[in-house]
Amino acid sequence: MKEGVSPGTVAVYYGGGKMKALERRMKVAELVLRCAICGFGVLAAALIGSDSQVREFFSVEKKAKFTDMKALVFLVIVNGIAATYSLVQIVRCVMSMLNGGVLLNKALACAIFSCDQVMAYLTLAAAAAAAQAAELGEFGQPELQWMKICDLYKKFCAQSGAGLAGAFAVSFCMVTVSSMSAFNLFRLYGKNKGRKSSGSW
Amino acid sequence: MKEGVSPGTVAVYYGGGKMKALERRMKVAELVLRCAICGFGVLAAALIGSDSQVREFFSVEKKAKFTDMKALVFLVIVNGIAATYSLVQIVRCVMSMLNGGVLLNKALACAIFSCDQVMAYLTLAAAAAAAQAAELGEFGQPELQWMKICDLYKKFCAQSGAGLAGAFAVSFCMVTVSSMSAFNLFRLYGKNKGRKSSGSW
Repeated sequence: MKEGVSPGTVAVYYGGGKMKALERRMKVAELVLRCAICGFGVLAAALIGSDSQVREFFSVEKKAKFTDMKALVFLVIVNGIAATYSLVQIVRCVMSMLNGGVLLNKALACAIFSCDQVMAYLTLAAAAAAAQAAELGEFGQPELQWMKICDLYKKFCAQSGAGLAGAFAVSFCMVTVSSMSAFNLFRLYGKNKGRKSSGSW
Repeated sequence: MKEGVSPGTVAVYYGGGKMKALERRMKVAELVLRCAICGFGVLAAALIGSDSQVREFFSVEKKAKFTDMKALVFLVIVNGIAATYSLVQIVRCVMSMLNGGVLLNKALACAIFSCDQVMAYLTLAAAAAAAQAAELGEFGQPELQWMKICDLYKKFCAQSGAGLAGAFAVSFCMVTVSSMSAFNLFRLYGKNKGRKSSGSW
């Protein structure tokens, strides 16, 4: 094992070129996904956070805005958090790639996996709640006297719809990244089987 | 290693009594959680699936039923699936406990972890969407002319609320079980580090 590796840190050097190539592809895929989460997260939060429309009905001004629905407010907050979190992870990914060797730390991999899981649950729950609100806005619920509002506020609904699509893209990428983090962690455990490690685990 | 263990199957026998006790406690906790998911899942599906109320307004009969909201239909389906899935897992847990030795199979542990993850995402998304519908039912959205319905359909809302609480309990247990499955899988990888295994991994 190379010198200069701190205790508790395990350096995994794969002899086979195939493994190295797979490792690199995984890293690139993770980086692309995290960039996508950041981009879609900002897009969704910006689209929904700036969403409002004023209409005039019989000289009475009526305004629809995203704060009218708690699910949309929750969606903006969660997507903002997801974008910020992904930005931090992008910096970590780039630093890890620039580092050259594939340096993996068990505690860090565990923390990343846990955070990814929490973010995946959060983004999915926010998108699901907003989807239900959007469904009611689009189709209404005549049995409960809830009229559809998208005929009146077309621009508001279109913008919300685009934001919601972005939020679902964030959820999908977050779930994929979370599975990749789990896979990374499993591989870290598996690959060091029988190898010398500098840590005490 | 005991005879009769098929290739690809790894038997993990911990020498230390502490590890054996931890292993047993984990198994019991998993069984209790899966029983809770099954119980809460059936309860939530039954409460919401049988939810309806008829009211008379100026000699016009009006009926509120769970099929009026797609989120509630989705919740019933998902909780039914979660209860059935947990029943299968309970049988597996009991068989594994009766087996005596802690027999772990890498492919099986991976499959359980993946299924648990899918179920955790599904139950959480269903509960979040239904929570948004319930919030609208309880408080309405005056800005969008959606009136609260829970003043009119008190029994309907109370039963839905109880069902939703059950659905959130299912989600919470499912997320916890999913984390335990991940931990089990990590431990399976880690503990066999440097040990003899009958498989080729």
